[in-house]
Amino acid sequence: MQAFNDIADFSKDEISALIELATRLDRSPEPEALKGKVLSLLFLSPSLRTLASFQAAMTRLGGGSFVISPDMSIHGLESRPGIVMDGIAAEHIREAVPVIASYGDAIGIRAFAERKNLQHDLDEVEFSSLTELIDTPYINMESAMGHPCQNLADWKTMNDLGIPSNDGKFVLSWAFHPRALPLAVPASTLQMAAQRGMDITVLRPHGFELPEPIMHKARDAAAAAGGSIRESIDRREAMQDAHVIYAKSWSSTAHYGDKIADQELRNELDDWCVDDSWFDNARKDCRFMHCLPVRRGVVVADSVLDGPRSVVIPEARNRMLAQMAVLHQMMRIQK
Amino acid sequence: MQAFNDIADFSKDEISALIELATRLDRSPEPEALKGKVLSLLFLSPSLRTLASFQAAMTRLGGGSFVISPDMSIHGLESRPGIVMDGIAAEHIREAVPVIASYGDAIGIRAFAERKNLQHDLDEVEFSSLTELIDTPYINMESAMGHPCQNLADWKTMNDLGIPSNDGKFVLSWAFHPRALPLAVPASTLQMAAQRGMDITVLRPHGFELPEPIMHKARDAAAAAGGSIRESIDRREAMQDAHVIYAKSWSSTAHYGDKIADQELRNELDDWCVDDSWFDNARKDCRFMHCLPVRRGVVVADSVLDGPRSVVIPEARNRMLAQMAVLHQMMRIQK
Amino acid sequence: MQAFNDIADFSKDEISALIELATRLDRSPEPEALKGKVLSLLFLSPSLRTLASFQAAMTRLGGGSFVISPDMSIHGLESRPGIVMDGIAAEHIREAVPVIASYGDAIGIRAFAERKNLQHDLDEVEFSSLTELIDTPYINMESAMGHPCQNLADWKTMNDLGIPSNDGKFVLSWAFHPRALPLAVPASTLQMAAQRGMDITVLRPHGFELPEPIMHKARDAAAAAGGSIRESIDRREAMQDAHVIYAKSWSSTAHYGDKIADQELRNELDDWCVDDSWFDNARKDCRFMHCLPVRRGVVVADSVLDGPRSVVIPEARNRMLAQMAVLHQMMRIQK
Repeated sequence: MQAFNDIADFSKDEISALIELATRLDRSPEPEALKGKVLSLLFLSPSLRTLASFQAAMTRLGGGSFVISPDMSIHGLESRPGIVMDGIAAEHIREAVPVIASYGDAIGIRAFAERKNLQHDLDEVEFSSLTELIDTPYINMESAMGHPCQNLADWKTMNDLGIPSNDGKFVLSWAFHPRALPLAVPASTLQMAAQRGMDITVLRPHGFELPEPIMHKARDAAAAAGGSIRESIDRREAMQDAHVIYAKSWSSTAHYGDKIADQELRNELDDWCVDDSWFDNARKDCRFMHCLPVRRGVVVADSVLDGPRSVVIPEARNRMLAQMAVLHQMMRIQK
Repeated sequence: MQAFNDIADFSKDEISALIELATRLDRSPEPEALKGKVLSLLFLSPSLRTLASFQAAMTRLGGGSFVISPDMSIHGLESRPGIVMDGIAAEHIREAVPVIASYGDAIGIRAFAERKNLQHDLDEVEFSSLTELIDTPYINMESAMGHPCQNLADWKTMNDLGIPSNDGKFVLSWAFHPRALPLAVPASTLQMAAQRGMDITVLRPHGFELPEPIMHKARDAAAAAGGSIRESIDRREAMQDAHVIYAKSWSSTAHYGDKIADQELRNELDDWCVDDSWFDNARKDCRFMHCLPVRRGVVVADSVLDGPRSVVIPEARNRMLAQMAVLHQMMRIQK
Repeated sequence: MQAFNDIADFSKDEISALIELATRLDRSPEPEALKGKVLSLLFLSPSLRTLASFQAAMTRLGGGSFVISPDMSIHGLESRPGIVMDGIAAEHIREAVPVIASYGDAIGIRAFAERKNLQHDLDEVEFSSLTELIDTPYINMESAMGHPCQNLADWKTMNDLGIPSNDGKFVLSWAFHPRALPLAVPASTLQMAAQRGMDITVLRPHGFELPEPIMHKARDAAAAAGGSIRESIDRREAMQDAHVIYAKSWSSTAHYGDKIADQELRNELDDWCVDDSWFDNARKDCRFMHCLPVRRGVVVADSVLDGPRSVVIPEARNRMLAQMAVLHQMMRIQK
């Protein structure tokens, strides 16, 4: 595997193989599989879970990792092309990224969306500008529109719980949050559920529609996999017979890059907090999923998060296992 | 071993076994003992020695670790129950701690005392609120009243030096420091020396008496182990025939949580700096111990710290060895 | 090997053996060579490449490392002798350095020059004050005047490219930079090229002459190795038939420690940016080397750095390989 960049790059069979491998590595550890192998971890945006789960994953497979993050004294990395670097930044990504990559057998990169221009972010201009600099196998640890490690972990989580693929009902719901957040998780989660062949409802207020290219790509995937996608602003209708609700806040797409207009719109929407009432007509065993971190009492009520519906902790643990499978395939093949 | 939380949880035989294991692992390394095993390290309070010694310990045993610390861009973790998280904090400990724990085979946790309410800290309310969230084996890397890794290292250090258990005279002395510091080290060090069966003098100014529940628990342990505990404010009397002085500053317990009153009281006490004169009537080979970090010229004179009495460097190295023994027992038993 | 402190401490044969070992470890990994071994990494000055390359190097050899850096909550380490520590600093290097060293089988230390007094820095007063505290084998990760890991990597890089030792023409050139930078790289690079037996031109403006003790030591090394050293302020003359130009900015030695005078002098020199015109009369395949980080459009033009002359990325990767050789020799011999 040369890149783990977008869940859409992988067939259902390839994903099944990765999930089987993840499950096997959990049951039968392979502490020598990646002996002496190095994963470079480059965070241009902050992280807790991703950093911890990747470092743990490499250790479990007998290798190791190092972390370059914005917390470190790296004086800010310059990324603008053709710039005269007479300001604060002492290093350009054109050197930093290839060098960091050259120390590893693979590199994980995280760079959040700029969230100024939607087309720019849909085109993954920023993330591509980094991966174009390297030949090393790489893993997308979250880009403007992608979070494939989360997607693989979520797919596995639903498998673990016996949630059906075809005929499984998946609600992807917007939730309130005081700040405008990136589209990476909702966009790539939609794609994941579509590839899994589920019947999906995207539940969101006006102004928070997912971008049409994202919807289009997911609809094609759903059709090919025997699933479906529809949109709704009606909680009750959306939650009817749902197997799972996947909650996540995201930016207003109607006002993308306009913080003030986004804020005005979302300020009215603080009742979009998932509480027990949302589950009235869902399946009795309907699950609550979230990629974490999650704001209690804002995105979801304590009673839901602390109750039996919530699978956020095993979901987060599956991040590590999913990544172990990706690392195993990526670095063993290199041999 | 499911938890290494309080030195009082372990019998003298169990402690001896841990110290023997620590000594053996120093002489005969076992670089495959914890192959592929992961230690999660969660610091809610800062660290240098503890972080370094745990990371080194895991490497020496063939495993690895990852660190989550307050230095990282983790936006502050919320800990209040039932809170509506519409402020700065983006994650609650109720998610963060179980997730971090789930990536490891064991977790080390550090959370200093709040130092607002003595009973609250004696009850380990804060630390318990973290460990209640997890099933993973855990290690106390310093809580409000406990520092068992330091205690085990100190016990081993005295063994290494041939300082007797019964009939060994141990002086635990308060020392000056510009700031009010936690009780974890003095409280747990007293308990350690008591369990070791030593004759202990707690030397401290008025207002700095250790809390009665701490004294009571230690007196019981001393009685059971054939030792004794007394208190003094007279250096000369306290140091008579001492084998070792263990210096440490701590908060005024008379004014616990009241920084101003504590400051007023301690400002008069800057002559509580251990210098050569303290050793006039001690045993000729009386040792100086301190858990580090230590302020030179404030807690202890350079001449003592740089002289032959000081064992602070081997004492600090024993932190790593003691922790290797704990990790070995904790993670091997899991198999 | 007890110390890797100064490239001048090693004979040409010893350096050749290290480079051969580095090349061999790249081709034939030894992921068990340093099993269970620990490298302590102490950064008193910031780092990206050095931290990443050392951590990766240890992993590739089957060991591990831990990092203590100024980014961490270590409250500043006190270094003044005899000080009463009643201020901010909670720990003195006299404890911190031996303790950190005691957790490793070797320690890497980085401490940049103070750049107040030239003789002080030439005498390596600060770095020596740290290494004097320890018995552990140590590696200089950059001191006031030394950067031996960079030197070894650069030597290997020239070997890899087939640049001749004797009769190889090496131009060490000053370059513009908005800030006054340390002398470690130019001083030790000059020494490296001299020991390699090259014909060296030091190209620099008035006021930026390298210190006479540095020049003297290098001239002796050049003479012994069959090379030569001259100085120039004329680019065209200096670059005549050059095999390689090694660009680096450094402080004015005429105004060492005087930031204002240095700034006034350098402000006139912003045309010292290596662009294509510099190579007019060099060898057609003349290479561009730099230790990184490098400021684009300031030290070097994009067209040079992005063109075929630039070898900065493989040069940086050789840092890791060179360090693997040093670590291998240092820690295997200890057995």
